[in-house]
Amino acid sequence: MAEQRQIRFGILGCATVARNLARAISLAPNATISAVGGSTAEKATAFAAENECPATAKIYGGYDAVLDDPDVDAVYIALPTSLHVRWAVLAAQKKKHVLVEKPAALNVAELDRILAACEASGVQYMDATPWMHHPRTAKMKEFFSDPLRLGQLKSVHCNVSFSLNIHPGEKPDVDAVGALGDAGWHSISAILLTTDYDLPESVTAFPDPEVNEAGVILSCGASLKWQDGRVATFYCSSVADMAMDIFAYGIAGKLRVHDFVIPFAEQSAPFYTLESYRFIEHGVKADFPQDVLMVIEFCNLAGSGSAPEKKWAVISRKTQLVVDAVMASIQKGFETIKVVY
Amino acid sequence: MAEQRQIRFGILGCATVARNLARAISLAPNATISAVGGSTAEKATAFAAENECPATAKIYGGYDAVLDDPDVDAVYIALPTSLHVRWAVLAAQKKKHVLVEKPAALNVAELDRILAACEASGVQYMDATPWMHHPRTAKMKEFFSDPLRLGQLKSVHCNVSFSLNIHPGEKPDVDAVGALGDAGWHSISAILLTTDYDLPESVTAFPDPEVNEAGVILSCGASLKWQDGRVATFYCSSVADMAMDIFAYGIAGKLRVHDFVIPFAEQSAPFYTLESYRFIEHGVKADFPQDVLMVIEFCNLAGSGSAPEKKWAVISRKTQLVVDAVMASIQKGFETIKVVY
Repeated sequence: MAEQRQIRFGILGCATVARNLARAISLAPNATISAVGGSTAEKATAFAAENECPATAKIYGGYDAVLDDPDVDAVYIALPTSLHVRWAVLAAQKKKHVLVEKPAALNVAELDRILAACEASGVQYMDATPWMHHPRTAKMKEFFSDPLRLGQLKSVHCNVSFSLNIHPGEKPDVDAVGALGDAGWHSISAILLTTDYDLPESVTAFPDPEVNEAGVILSCGASLKWQDGRVATFYCSSVADMAMDIFAYGIAGKLRVHDFVIPFAEQSAPFYTLESYRFIEHGVKADFPQDVLMVIEFCNLAGSGSAPEKKWAVISRKTQLVVDAVMASIQKGFETIKVVY
Repeated sequence: MAEQRQIRFGILGCATVARNLARAISLAPNATISAVGGSTAEKATAFAAENECPATAKIYGGYDAVLDDPDVDAVYIALPTSLHVRWAVLAAQKKKHVLVEKPAALNVAELDRILAACEASGVQYMDATPWMHHPRTAKMKEFFSDPLRLGQLKSVHCNVSFSLNIHPGEKPDVDAVGALGDAGWHSISAILLTTDYDLPESVTAFPDPEVNEAGVILSCGASLKWQDGRVATFYCSSVADMAMDIFAYGIAGKLRVHDFVIPFAEQSAPFYTLESYRFIEHGVKADFPQDVLMVIEFCNLAGSGSAPEKKWAVISRKTQLVVDAVMASIQKGFETIKVVY
C-alpha cells in the first residue's frame, strides 16, 4: 500500500456550519487546512483567526482562487445549498476532491451534475454527515441487518429537531429547503440506514408543514412506504426542543437511539435494543469525534491512489431523492410521490 | 356521602380478552362477579371454572338472561365488536351500567346509540382501556399540560404492536377493524392524551396498510394534524415485536414511555422526560394492577348514587371518531379526512 499523504483542504464559505469542520480537519492526522475562501478576504481572515486555522493557510476573498491553488487537494463546501452545484462542479473539474455540506444540492438533477463532474475527474465525493462515520452507526446497521435480532423490519420513526430560533419573518435561506434539508436530511439518512439503502416505493408528506412568513419550512414530516409493507415516518423541525431519535421496530426486536446526529458523549455513544426478549444497552466507543472520523475517512479515500469510493455518492443521491420526493409531495398538495432511482 | 355498595357484574362473552377483567373484578374490593353469560352454558361454565369466578356466580347460556337478572348491576361486554351496540343498548335499557371492550363500537354512529341508551337510563358508561386508569397516565398528563415542562406540543409518535400470530388466511374477526381497533385504539387514545383530548382537524392514513388474505388489517398507521401545526403519527401492528411507545416532543421538553399499554412492572411504572435540559426518570407507583384500578373507578362511579360521569363517554367517542377517520381514509384511497365532533 502506498504511503498515505496528508490531504490539504480549501474551505469554501465561512458560515457558522464550517466551524466544526475546520476543527475536525485540524484534528484529523491525515488532513490540514491550506486555504480559506470567503465572500470577502476580511471574512476569510476573521474565520481563519477565530477557528485557529494554521498560520500557513492562504486567505482568499472569493472561491475561484481556492480552486486554482495547486496546494489544495480537496474542498469542503459550506456555501448556501443553491451554490453547491456551481462550486462543487468547478472544484471537481479542477481535480479537487469534494466534501460538501448537506443538503448536497437543491435537487437530484443538480446533485447528478456534481457526481458526474467528480466521476469524470476521478475525485472523491462525500457529503458531510458526520454521524454516518461514528462506529455506533455501523453497529446499529449490524443490528438492522440481522434476521435473528431485529428480524424483518416493520416500521421506523425518526424525529430530529433543533431550536434554531428562526424569527417568524426572517429572510429565507436562498435555497428555501429549510428544516427538510437539515433535520430532514438526517432523518431520511437514518431511515435509509435501517433499510440498508433500499429506497421506498413512495413518499407522502404530512399535510400543512409549518412555514415562516417567508415560506421557509420550519417543521414537516412524511410517511414512506415499501412494497413489502414496511412503513417509515419522520418529523423534522427547527422550532422544537432538541430531538435526535430513531425508533426501529422489527418482527423479532427493536432499536432506539436518542442522540444519533450528535452523540451526547463523544467517547462512547449508546443505543438500546430489545432482542430475544432482553433489553440491551450497547455503548460504542470512538477514538475521535465523529466529524474527525469523517474527515479521516474522506482523506483516506482521497489519498488512496485508487479509484474513488462510490458508496458515499450512492447514499447521498438516495437521500437527496427522498428529500426531493417529500418536497414534491408538499408542493403537489401532499400527493403520494413515487421514488425512482 | 352514601355508603358504597359492591357492584355485581355480569360478564357477557367468554373470549380470551375477558380473562383479565374477570381477575380484575375479583380483585377489586368494590366489585364481584355475579353472572357469566356465554354463547352456550358449557362455555360459560368452563370460563367460570378456569377464571376462578365465585361459586355463587350464575351461569347462563345466552346474554338476555344476564340482563334480566336482578342481581346484576353492571355488565362487562367482551363480545365481538359488531355485537357491542346490540348488547350495550339492551343492557343500558335494563338499567345495567356498561363497561365495554375496545374498540367501543364498529363506528361512532353505533357508539352514539350506546351512549344515548346509557344517558337515557342514567347508567355509567366506560370503555375498557385499563392504562388510562394507571396513576402514571395522570402524571404524564400533568407533564403534557405544563407549559414550563413540555411547552407547546409539536409532534407525537405512538407505536403499538403485539405479535398475535394471526395466520395469513385466517377468518376475519366479524368486525374486521383488525389491529386498528386494538393496537390502533391504544395509539389514538395516547395521542389524544397528549393533546388533552383536543381532536385533530384531519387524519390521513398511510398508503397500503398490511392486510391478511381475508382483508383484516394487520398493520396500519396515519398522520393526524391540528390547525396550530401539531402533528401526530402512529403505527399499529399485530404482526411486529411488542411495542407500546409514546414519544411526545414539545418546544421546551419531551417525553417517552415504552410500556404505556401494560406496564412491565405492575407496582411501579416509569416514564422519561427531558425538561429544563435534564433527563428525568419518573417512577409511578400503583396500589393495584391497572385493570383493577379501572374496575374500582367504574364501580365507584356506578355505585355513587350521583349522575353518571360523562368524561369516559367523551374520551371514548373522540377515540372512536379518530378510528373512524383512519378507516375512512384507508377506504377512500388515503384521502385526508376531516374530523368533526
